[in-house]
Amino acid sequence: MQKTIGYAAYNHNSPLLPFSFERRDPQPTDVQIEILFCGVCHSDIHQVRNEWGNSVFPMVPGHEIVGKVIKTGNEVTRFKPGDSVGVGCLVDSCRVCPDCRENLEQFCNDAVFTYNSPDKHSGGSNYGGYSRQIVVDQDFVLHVSDKLDLAAAAPLLCAGITTYSPLRNWGVGKGDKVGIVGLGGLGHMGIKFARAFGAHVVLFTTTPGKANDARRLGADEVVVSKNIEEVQEHLASFDFILDTVAAPHNLDVYTSLLKRDGTLCLVGVPDHPHPSPAVGNLIFKRRSIAGSLIGGLKETQEMLDFCAENAITSDIEIIPIQQVNEAYERVLKSDVKYRFVIDLASLKQLE
Amino acid sequence: MQKTIGYAAYNHNSPLLPFSFERRDPQPTDVQIEILFCGVCHSDIHQVRNEWGNSVFPMVPGHEIVGKVIKTGNEVTRFKPGDSVGVGCLVDSCRVCPDCRENLEQFCNDAVFTYNSPDKHSGGSNYGGYSRQIVVDQDFVLHVSDKLDLAAAAPLLCAGITTYSPLRNWGVGKGDKVGIVGLGGLGHMGIKFARAFGAHVVLFTTTPGKANDARRLGADEVVVSKNIEEVQEHLASFDFILDTVAAPHNLDVYTSLLKRDGTLCLVGVPDHPHPSPAVGNLIFKRRSIAGSLIGGLKETQEMLDFCAENAITSDIEIIPIQQVNEAYERVLKSDVKYRFVIDLASLKQLE
Repeated sequence: MQKTIGYAAYNHNSPLLPFSFERRDPQPTDVQIEILFCGVCHSDIHQVRNEWGNSVFPMVPGHEIVGKVIKTGNEVTRFKPGDSVGVGCLVDSCRVCPDCRENLEQFCNDAVFTYNSPDKHSGGSNYGGYSRQIVVDQDFVLHVSDKLDLAAAAPLLCAGITTYSPLRNWGVGKGDKVGIVGLGGLGHMGIKFARAFGAHVVLFTTTPGKANDARRLGADEVVVSKNIEEVQEHLASFDFILDTVAAPHNLDVYTSLLKRDGTLCLVGVPDHPHPSPAVGNLIFKRRSIAGSLIGGLKETQEMLDFCAENAITSDIEIIPIQQVNEAYERVLKSDVKYRFVIDLASLKQLE
Repeated sequence: MQKTIGYAAYNHNSPLLPFSFERRDPQPTDVQIEILFCGVCHSDIHQVRNEWGNSVFPMVPGHEIVGKVIKTGNEVTRFKPGDSVGVGCLVDSCRVCPDCRENLEQFCNDAVFTYNSPDKHSGGSNYGGYSRQIVVDQDFVLHVSDKLDLAAAAPLLCAGITTYSPLRNWGVGKGDKVGIVGLGGLGHMGIKFARAFGAHVVLFTTTPGKANDARRLGADEVVVSKNIEEVQEHLASFDFILDTVAAPHNLDVYTSLLKRDGTLCLVGVPDHPHPSPAVGNLIFKRRSIAGSLIGGLKETQEMLDFCAENAITSDIEIIPIQQVNEAYERVLKSDVKYRFVIDLASLKQLE
């Protein structure tokens, strides 16, 4: 076992504070990674505050991890020390179920998430990326091109794949009209990917002040969703709408904007239910409401490679870990453009 | 213009009563049809009672029409006097929009429904199938094989296509596990089609007494949906579930039974909203909730031909039109196995 340091929540009321713990020694198929950067995902806050009711403390959050390989087990073939790598929301799965065999490990019933998930090695709960290093089986480690800014690449591991996967799964491409609802960590990546896939991209926001930024990120049009007339100009015109807003809201606004056979895809779980969607909106144009969850390892690698080829990263604000509690408050106020990324070098002074 | 007779609601409180009115003379592309049988659809009751708020009175309902051609316009090529034919929910559409060009006239914004719809010929509202005859453009008339019992074929024109179309659209076939929710006019057709397509069919009902009948109709299994343990044996195992129940109910029961990428398809519009479906159920298996609306003319003909080849009709109870008001009350109590069909010969005594 190897000592390391990170920041942890000690209980659901606690701020994140320094925490010393151990990582396992690399097993034959393991990769030991020095973590350079870790993105701050809204789901980190939900779990630190036990808002999903399944939190185990102390908890070291973080699943948007980018770093350098420092050591590999003797059966590791795909990585060598010095490689730039990423770790996302998953660190293991059963490998044999239909979902795993189809490279959709995110749906495996035995998927092991990167933190706050049972860890077969320690017998306890595992620890995430707000720390100096991590040890992960090679099958759950991803190559990150050195063409990319590594800090700005970190959010690709969750915000990136969460938006890339549904756009790919529903076949978004050239000639399609695509809506992105919400301009935050997820939404700003949704705009970038939909634009890169050749779609005509419309950003829906409740905040008129975000229009210029949305256009800069690649939106062809911006619609203020509270302006009913502006919204209704787009009735029945979208092939696909990716809704990144987790707060409860009226889905009928968006189902009514879909063409026949169009899909509204939700990627956020609201803490209270959305108003019940109008079934007539679905029936009269054969529309669907669907959900999507991050992506499998194969697709996550494909996404990272696509980002390297197309120079796509997240818009970020880098912070030392000592500012993470303040950053959480700002995330809750949507006061970040568009993702906080922790520079883990800031942990050195605690070693 | 030609005088005819039918049964109409004179206002939203009125029982159906005899009504004399006129049909247009057949135009060059029109087919004049002697109506033999007309099914009683639940939507007839909604409209007669103005429960959708758009009713025009007097209203002659009926859109599950089977009869014989008695006259054709001089440009009609596909029909001749004596042919057995059907008319469903649609009697016209714009013919040029993308939906019409893809043979999905049911989604055309200018679709003309068979009754209670603006009639360009008369300038008023059109009249449906609870009558002695009807005049319809040949493109909206369907061939009905004389292999089929014509009375039992009538409900195919709405209940049949409403269940056939989604099962086809979502590709139900051999090896699939398919759920049908509700055993009524729609549900009993859903069982028959899903079985004929080679699927393993599970009927969900709130009424234990319907189990034997469901098996007779072709269900491989019957699950009483109020029995939570029985339901949960089927978690995450269905490829597709067709929900024919319009009354508000908990959709989460059914989304949780879908495999990854499975679809719950709704074909009934509830008068009050369903409880809001759990978004997590969609996200964690990439499931969808969709809607489906009858079918286009091409698919309706395909369905009728499939029924002729596979000896599929509706299970019906034939009534004279003089019993239609009593039949409505029984439909509202689900006291019919599984569709009332009006024998329009019963109108002769009024002529």
